[in-house]
Amino acid sequence: MRQEIFDAIWKLRRDSKSACLSYVDEDGYPVTRAMLILEHEQIHTQYLSTNTSSSKIAALKQNPKASLYYCDPASFQGVLFAGDIKVCTDSSTKELLWRDGFEKYYPKGATDPDYCVLKLTVKRGSHYHGLCNTQFTPEELE
Amino acid sequence: MRQEIFDAIWKLRRDSKSACLSYVDEDGYPVTRAMLILEHEQIHTQYLSTNTSSSKIAALKQNPKASLYYCDPASFQGVLFAGDIKVCTDSSTKELLWRDGFEKYYPKGATDPDYCVLKLTVKRGSHYHGLCNTQFTPEELE
Repeated sequence: MRQEIFDAIWKLRRDSKSACLSYVDEDGYPVTRAMLILEHEQIHTQYLSTNTSSSKIAALKQNPKASLYYCDPASFQGVLFAGDIKVCTDSSTKELLWRDGFEKYYPKGATDPDYCVLKLTVKRGSHYHGLCNTQFTPEELE
Repeated sequence: MRQEIFDAIWKLRRDSKSACLSYVDEDGYPVTRAMLILEHEQIHTQYLSTNTSSSKIAALKQNPKASLYYCDPASFQGVLFAGDIKVCTDSSTKELLWRDGFEKYYPKGATDPDYCVLKLTVKRGSHYHGLCNTQFTPEELE
Protein backbone atom coordinates (compact mmCIF):
# COMPACT_ATOMS: atom_id res chain seq x y z
CA MET A 1 0.00 0.00 0.00
CA ARG A 2 2.76 2.43 0.99
CA GLN A 3 4.73 1.40 -2.09
CA GLU A 4 1.75 2.33 -4.31
CA ILE A 5 1.76 5.80 -2.77
CA PHE A 6 5.52 6.11 -3.30
CA ASP A 7 5.02 5.11 -6.96
CA ALA A 8 2.34 7.82 -7.28
CA ILE A 9 4.72 10.40 -5.74
CA TRP A 10 7.46 9.49 -8.21
CA LYS A 11 4.95 9.69 -11.08
CA LEU A 12 3.88 13.21 -10.02
CA ARG A 13 7.52 14.27 -9.73
CA ARG A 14 8.47 12.76 -13.12
CA ASP A 15 5.41 13.80 -15.15
CA SER A 16 5.04 17.41 -13.98
CA LYS A 17 6.22 20.20 -16.24
CA SER A 18 5.56 22.78 -13.54
CA ALA A 19 5.07 22.95 -9.78
CA CYS A 20 4.23 25.63 -7.22
CA LEU A 21 7.16 27.01 -5.25
CA SER A 22 6.22 28.60 -1.92
CA TYR A 23 8.38 30.61 0.44
CA VAL A 24 7.79 33.10 3.24
CA ASP A 25 8.23 36.82 2.60
CA GLU A 26 9.74 39.37 5.00
CA ASP A 27 6.27 40.11 6.47
CA GLY A 28 5.71 36.42 7.21
CA TYR A 29 3.21 35.80 4.39
CA PRO A 30 3.55 32.73 2.20
CA VAL A 31 4.17 33.52 -1.47
CA THR A 32 3.53 30.98 -4.24
CA ARG A 33 4.78 31.00 -7.84
CA ALA A 34 4.47 28.46 -10.65
CA MET A 35 7.93 27.25 -11.72
CA LEU A 36 9.10 25.09 -14.60
CA ILE A 37 10.44 21.70 -13.56
CA LEU A 38 13.55 21.10 -15.64
CA GLU A 39 14.91 17.94 -13.97
CA HIS A 40 13.06 14.97 -12.52
CA GLU A 41 15.76 12.69 -11.14
CA GLN A 42 15.74 12.84 -7.37
CA ILE A 43 13.32 13.42 -4.52
CA HIS A 44 15.83 14.55 -1.90
CA THR A 45 17.38 17.32 -4.00
CA GLN A 46 15.37 19.34 -6.51
CA TYR A 47 16.64 22.22 -8.66
CA LEU A 48 14.84 25.22 -10.13
CA SER A 49 16.13 28.05 -12.26
CA THR A 50 15.26 31.70 -11.80
CA ASN A 51 16.63 35.17 -12.22
CA THR A 52 18.92 36.50 -9.50
CA SER A 53 17.11 39.85 -9.35
CA SER A 54 13.71 38.26 -8.59
CA SER A 55 12.07 39.10 -5.27
CA LYS A 56 12.05 35.42 -4.29
CA ILE A 57 15.85 35.39 -4.14
CA ALA A 58 15.94 38.19 -1.57
CA ALA A 59 13.23 36.45 0.49
CA LEU A 60 14.91 33.00 0.31
CA LYS A 61 18.24 34.45 1.40
CA GLN A 62 16.51 35.83 4.49
CA ASN A 63 14.43 32.70 5.13
CA PRO A 64 15.35 29.48 3.28
CA LYS A 65 12.22 27.55 4.37
CA ALA A 66 10.28 26.60 1.26
CA SER A 67 8.10 23.98 -0.36
CA LEU A 68 7.41 22.64 -3.82
CA TYR A 69 3.90 21.39 -4.58
CA TYR A 70 3.15 19.11 -7.53
CA CYS A 71 -0.50 18.64 -8.32
CA ASP A 72 -2.62 16.62 -10.72
CA PRO A 73 -6.18 17.91 -10.39
CA ALA A 74 -7.48 15.18 -12.74
CA SER A 75 -6.55 12.44 -10.26
CA PHE A 76 -7.17 14.54 -7.10
CA GLN A 77 -3.56 14.02 -6.15
CA GLY A 78 -0.84 16.31 -4.91
CA VAL A 79 2.55 16.02 -3.28
CA LEU A 80 4.29 18.65 -1.19
CA PHE A 81 8.03 18.59 -0.59
CA ALA A 82 9.14 20.87 2.26
CA GLY A 83 12.75 21.81 2.94
CA ASP A 84 15.39 24.48 2.71
CA ILE A 85 16.52 26.32 -0.39
CA LYS A 86 20.07 27.38 -1.17
CA VAL A 87 20.58 30.01 -3.86
CA CYS A 88 23.38 28.65 -6.08
CA THR A 89 25.48 30.97 -8.22
CA ASP A 90 28.43 28.62 -8.87
CA SER A 91 29.03 27.76 -12.52
CA SER A 92 28.74 23.96 -12.23
CA THR A 93 25.25 24.09 -10.67
CA LYS A 94 24.18 26.80 -13.11
CA GLU A 95 25.36 24.69 -16.07
CA LEU A 96 23.50 21.65 -14.72
CA LEU A 97 20.15 23.34 -15.29
CA TRP A 98 20.97 25.39 -18.37
CA ARG A 99 18.66 24.58 -21.30
CA ASP A 100 18.59 25.56 -24.98
CA GLY A 101 16.55 28.71 -25.37
CA PHE A 102 17.53 30.25 -22.02
CA GLU A 103 19.60 32.81 -23.98
CA LYS A 104 16.31 34.60 -24.57
CA TYR A 105 16.12 35.41 -20.84
CA TYR A 106 19.84 35.37 -20.01
CA PRO A 107 21.76 36.74 -23.01
CA LYS A 108 25.14 36.10 -21.39
CA GLY A 109 24.52 32.33 -21.21
CA ALA A 110 25.01 30.01 -18.23
CA THR A 111 27.42 32.48 -16.63
CA ASP A 112 24.91 35.37 -16.84
CA PRO A 113 24.92 36.94 -13.36
CA ASP A 114 21.12 37.33 -13.49
CA TYR A 115 20.68 33.56 -13.91
CA CYS A 116 20.84 31.40 -10.78
CA VAL A 117 19.66 28.05 -9.48
CA LEU A 118 17.58 27.22 -6.42
CA LYS A 119 18.55 23.97 -4.72
CA LEU A 120 15.82 22.52 -2.51
CA THR A 121 16.95 19.96 0.05
CA VAL A 122 13.78 18.12 1.03
CA LYS A 123 13.28 17.33 4.72
CA ARG A 124 9.80 15.82 4.58
CA GLY A 125 6.82 15.40 2.33
CA SER A 126 3.07 14.91 2.24
CA HIS A 127 1.06 13.09 -0.40
CA TYR A 128 -2.63 13.92 -0.77
CA HIS A 129 -5.10 11.73 -2.58
CA GLY A 130 -8.65 12.91 -2.02
CA LEU A 131 -9.05 12.95 1.76
CA CYS A 132 -6.09 10.61 2.33
CA ASN A 133 -2.86 12.22 3.52
CA THR A 134 0.46 10.33 3.80
CA GLN A 135 3.56 11.80 5.43
CA PHE A 136 6.99 10.59 4.28
CA THR A 137 10.70 11.37 4.41
CA PRO A 138 12.77 11.63 1.21
CA GLU A 139 14.91 8.67 2.35
CA GLU A 140 11.87 6.40 2.05
CA LEU A 141 11.63 7.10 -1.67
CA GLU A 142 15.25 6.81 -2.76
CA MET B 1 -2.63 49.61 -19.06
CA ARG B 2 -3.24 49.07 -15.36
CA GLN B 3 -6.94 48.54 -16.13
CA GLU B 4 -6.03 45.72 -18.54
CA ILE B 5 -4.10 44.01 -15.75
CA PHE B 6 -7.03 44.45 -13.35
CA ASP B 7 -9.33 42.88 -15.97
CA ALA B 8 -6.93 39.95 -16.26
CA ILE B 9 -6.92 39.54 -12.45
CA TRP B 10 -10.72 39.48 -12.35
CA LYS B 11 -10.74 36.95 -15.21
CA LEU B 12 -8.37 34.65 -13.31
CA ARG B 13 -10.47 34.99 -10.15
CA ARG B 14 -13.76 34.36 -12.03
CA ASP B 15 -12.65 31.54 -14.33
CA SER B 16 -10.65 29.41 -11.88
CA LYS B 17 -12.22 26.28 -10.49
CA SER B 18 -9.30 25.75 -8.13
CA ALA B 19 -6.45 27.73 -6.59
CA CYS B 20 -3.47 27.02 -4.35
CA LEU B 21 -3.91 27.93 -0.69
CA SER B 22 -0.65 28.46 1.20
CA TYR B 23 -0.11 28.92 4.91
CA VAL B 24 2.82 28.56 7.31
CA ASP B 25 3.08 25.47 9.52
CA GLU B 26 4.26 25.39 13.14
CA ASP B 27 7.87 24.79 12.01
CA GLY B 28 7.77 27.87 9.79
CA TYR B 29 7.53 25.99 6.47
CA PRO B 30 5.04 27.10 3.82
CA VAL B 31 2.41 24.47 3.00
CA THR B 32 0.37 24.56 -0.21
CA ARG B 33 -2.84 22.73 -1.06
CA ALA B 34 -5.15 22.89 -4.08
CA MET B 35 -8.62 24.09 -3.05
CA LEU B 36 -11.91 24.32 -4.93
CA ILE B 37 -13.06 27.88 -5.60
CA LEU B 38 -16.79 27.91 -4.90
CA GLU B 39 -17.50 31.65 -5.13
CA HIS B 40 -16.03 34.28 -7.43
CA GLU B 41 -17.65 37.53 -6.41
CA GLN B 42 -15.12 39.68 -4.56
CA ILE B 43 -11.41 40.28 -4.46
CA HIS B 44 -11.19 41.68 -0.93
CA THR B 45 -12.92 38.73 0.76
CA GLN B 46 -12.60 35.17 -0.51
CA TYR B 47 -14.13 32.05 1.02
CA LEU B 48 -13.02 28.42 0.97
CA SER B 49 -14.56 25.35 2.53
CA THR B 50 -12.68 22.62 4.35
CA ASN B 51 -12.99 20.11 7.13
CA THR B 52 -12.48 21.35 10.68
CA SER B 53 -10.20 18.44 11.56
CA SER B 54 -7.73 19.18 8.75
CA SER B 55 -4.17 20.09 9.73
CA LYS B 56 -4.48 23.46 7.97
CA ILE B 57 -7.10 24.59 10.50
CA ALA B 58 -4.74 24.03 13.43
CA ALA B 59 -1.95 25.84 11.58
CA LEU B 60 -4.16 28.79 10.53
CA LYS B 61 -5.44 29.25 14.08
CA GLN B 62 -1.81 29.58 15.21
CA ASN B 63 -0.78 31.78 12.28
CA PRO B 64 -3.49 33.35 10.08
CA LYS B 65 -1.07 34.62 7.41
CA ALA B 66 -1.99 32.97 4.13
CA SER B 67 -2.19 33.40 0.39
CA LEU B 68 -4.31 32.16 -2.48
CA TYR B 69 -2.65 31.71 -5.86
CA TYR B 70 -4.64 31.47 -9.10
CA CYS B 71 -2.69 30.38 -12.13
CA ASP B 72 -3.32 29.90 -15.83
CA PRO B 73 -0.22 28.18 -17.25
CA ALA B 74 -1.59 28.49 -20.81
CA SER B 75 -1.34 32.29 -20.69
CA PHE B 76 1.73 32.40 -18.36
CA GLN B 77 -0.35 34.35 -15.86
CA GLY B 78 -0.88 34.08 -12.15
CA VAL B 79 -2.28 36.18 -9.36
CA LEU B 80 -1.44 35.91 -5.67
CA PHE B 81 -3.73 37.31 -2.99
CA ALA B 82 -2.05 37.58 0.43
CA GLY B 83 -3.92 38.25 3.65
CA ASP B 84 -5.22 36.80 6.86
CA ILE B 85 -7.57 33.87 7.26
CA LYS B 86 -10.30 33.54 9.85
CA VAL B 87 -11.72 30.08 10.49
CA CYS B 88 -15.53 30.53 10.49
CA THR B 89 -17.80 28.06 12.24
CA ASP B 90 -20.94 30.23 12.46
CA SER B 91 -23.97 28.86 10.64
CA SER B 92 -24.58 31.82 8.30
CA THR B 93 -21.06 31.73 6.83
CA LYS B 94 -21.19 27.94 6.62
CA GLU B 95 -24.50 28.08 4.73
CA LEU B 96 -23.10 30.68 2.34
CA LEU B 97 -20.64 28.18 0.92
CA TRP B 98 -22.68 24.98 1.22
CA ARG B 99 -23.18 23.24 -2.13
CA ASP B 100 -25.27 20.28 -3.31
CA GLY B 101 -23.25 17.11 -2.91
CA PHE B 102 -21.34 18.21 0.18
CA GLU B 103 -23.40 15.67 2.16
CA LYS B 104 -20.98 13.06 0.81
CA TYR B 105 -18.21 14.64 2.91
CA TYR B 106 -20.30 16.17 5.69
CA PRO B 107 -23.27 13.85 6.37
CA LYS B 108 -24.78 16.21 8.95
CA GLY B 109 -25.22 19.00 6.37
CA ALA B 110 -24.24 22.65 6.69
CA THR B 111 -24.24 22.39 10.49
CA ASP B 112 -21.84 19.41 10.48
CA PRO B 113 -19.14 20.31 13.05
CA ASP B 114 -16.44 18.91 10.74
CA TYR B 115 -17.41 21.41 8.01
CA CYS B 116 -16.06 24.95 8.28
CA VAL B 117 -15.25 27.95 6.11
CA LEU B 118 -12.00 29.86 5.69
CA LYS B 119 -12.46 33.60 5.17
CA LEU B 120 -9.47 35.28 3.55
CA THR B 121 -9.28 39.06 3.95
CA VAL B 122 -6.87 40.17 1.23
CA LYS B 123 -4.33 42.84 2.14
CA ARG B 124 -2.36 42.97 -1.09
CA GLY B 125 -1.81 41.14 -4.33
CA SER B 126 0.67 40.46 -7.11
CA HIS B 127 -0.11 39.72 -10.73
CA TYR B 128 2.47 37.88 -12.81
CA HIS B 129 2.48 37.80 -16.58
CA GLY B 130 5.67 36.32 -17.92
CA LEU B 131 8.42 38.44 -16.40
CA CYS B 132 6.08 41.34 -15.62
CA ASN B 133 4.99 41.69 -11.99
CA THR B 134 2.32 44.16 -10.83
CA GLN B 135 1.56 44.86 -7.16
CA PHE B 136 -1.93 46.00 -6.18
CA THR B 137 -4.27 46.45 -3.24
CA PRO B 138 -7.77 44.91 -3.23
CA GLU B 139 -9.31 48.40 -3.07
CA GLU B 140 -7.95 49.14 -6.56
CA LEU B 141 -10.03 46.32 -8.02
CA GLU B 142 -13.39 46.85 -6.34
